[in-house]
Amino acid sequence: MKQHMKNTVTVFAPASVSNINCGFDIFGFALDEPGDEIVMTLNDSGKVTIDAITGDEGLLPKDTEKNTASAVVQLYLNQLGLQQGVGIVLHKKMPLNSGLGSSAASSVAALVAINTLMGNRLTRRELLPLAMEGERLACGNAHADNVAPSLFGGLVLLRGYNPPDTVQLPVPENLWCGVVHPDVSIPTREARQMLPTMIPLRDAVTQWGNVAGLVAGFYQNDLELIGRSMQDIIIEPVRAGRIPHFYAMRDLAMKAGAVGFGISGSGPTVFTFCESEKQAQLINEQLSSLLNEHAITNQCYVSKINQQGARIEPLTSDL
Amino acid sequence: MKQHMKNTVTVFAPASVSNINCGFDIFGFALDEPGDEIVMTLNDSGKVTIDAITGDEGLLPKDTEKNTASAVVQLYLNQLGLQQGVGIVLHKKMPLNSGLGSSAASSVAALVAINTLMGNRLTRRELLPLAMEGERLACGNAHADNVAPSLFGGLVLLRGYNPPDTVQLPVPENLWCGVVHPDVSIPTREARQMLPTMIPLRDAVTQWGNVAGLVAGFYQNDLELIGRSMQDIIIEPVRAGRIPHFYAMRDLAMKAGAVGFGISGSGPTVFTFCESEKQAQLINEQLSSLLNEHAITNQCYVSKINQQGARIEPLTSDL
Repeated sequence: MKQHMKNTVTVFAPASVSNINCGFDIFGFALDEPGDEIVMTLNDSGKVTIDAITGDEGLLPKDTEKNTASAVVQLYLNQLGLQQGVGIVLHKKMPLNSGLGSSAASSVAALVAINTLMGNRLTRRELLPLAMEGERLACGNAHADNVAPSLFGGLVLLRGYNPPDTVQLPVPENLWCGVVHPDVSIPTREARQMLPTMIPLRDAVTQWGNVAGLVAGFYQNDLELIGRSMQDIIIEPVRAGRIPHFYAMRDLAMKAGAVGFGISGSGPTVFTFCESEKQAQLINEQLSSLLNEHAITNQCYVSKINQQGARIEPLTSDL
Repeated sequence: MKQHMKNTVTVFAPASVSNINCGFDIFGFALDEPGDEIVMTLNDSGKVTIDAITGDEGLLPKDTEKNTASAVVQLYLNQLGLQQGVGIVLHKKMPLNSGLGSSAASSVAALVAINTLMGNRLTRRELLPLAMEGERLACGNAHADNVAPSLFGGLVLLRGYNPPDTVQLPVPENLWCGVVHPDVSIPTREARQMLPTMIPLRDAVTQWGNVAGLVAGFYQNDLELIGRSMQDIIIEPVRAGRIPHFYAMRDLAMKAGAVGFGISGSGPTVFTFCESEKQAQLINEQLSSLLNEHAITNQCYVSKINQQGARIEPLTSDL
């Protein structure tokens, strides 16, 4: 009976790197790993519940209204006027408060799961505003630069927000991403509060020149132009101080030939763009060694830009 | 004797539209018309002189150091260690202080002329910094968003200034530009002094989202995306007040189906992007009528984006 409605589904939603230096709040891209996995099951309880969470060291709330995964599922059901019991098991396979879009991955995995179980009543594009509400719950700001890449995959531009206007940018061939997460927690909400409310016009012009250069570089598959444009004179100077050995890591990466180096989201994770998998791995090893020398544990990942976004995992047994 | 060194040359350098709404100081494109024409002749005087100027109503200086055309020629000769008498006749075929890159057209025409007469010792790319010095003389700021398009043609991104990093963006097919110049003078120097020195970070993010959207729109040949991105919440609100009937003109243009509407440079010229020559002409006529009703004389131009830049004109007789 292949065609019967499944009542359980497993969805993986990838972590994502937002900002890309100059592009604060407007760019994001998805990684192959890490990410979140959600196993969702329909039931007769009439309620949405978090049944279990693994990998969060007990830090995430289990209240339906406070956990982003259950909260966005409830929003989804409300929007469609559905009453449905839903049990959620969340496998957090990535660090929290890492700047890798952890809350976004949970929201996206949960929404793709419920939408699958409900027969795909909404398109992925229609899921975006609901995922953004998950971000509002998680960090106080309905930003889309993590949820959009986690949902759609690829390299996403958020042109504007009223309504959300996303543009899929071309992903350069041979572009690899190295990601290093030092075990230091920087909650996104706090990271946003550190930012200046006013900036010099002159700096803004420098920044949007680089933003334009970065977009042109992606379209032209020009890694040198991408590298020259990966500068951030506004946000990075404020946030770098909270990231251990940020400038030493940047020097190491750039001397080793990285295309560019920057903060992933609000940090503390840093990322490099590289011309090969091998280069990304070598640079990750150097950065990891530097952190280890200072007794800072860390996790490293190497990935191309994930062009698929959230994906439904094969079931181990057909239920 | 076709191969002898010519001692006179005529060069036309096109007017240009800088900024394109959100892209203050980083975008510019060249027009087919209007522009400046320079007739330059080598002589034995040992000096660079302005021999005549037409079309400026006596407003431009004729001192070698103060006129941008002669000043950049002197810079060129100094840079190459040359001593050479040069006579310059400048035919100003465009309005001054119009926001159409009038000073840039003079500098560019003069530099291309002297470089041609000297056997093209520098590339056009090498002429750019000299043309930027002409802008510093003319308005106090060595900006490149008029000189680069006037020199190279096309749609130019100025990614950064240290050193000048220009990127030629693709020019969408079927994109026409209507330009309307109301006879009101706004010197660039004054227009720059009106601008705020500090701006809200939130507005800067909105602006660079639109900058990124505009670049993506050019690469994707997507006139709708270009139109959605042609917004300026930072500079336009400050400058619009100096341009007669700006918002009424914008309403007219957008209701008539323009892709976008904005201030050319620092104004008072306004421009529309249109999907056809006919539409650009019709909108120009409507805008011109509106200005005429208020007794404001004006000049209108319709052009594709000029992809050639400054050009050497055929001589009427071989000297």
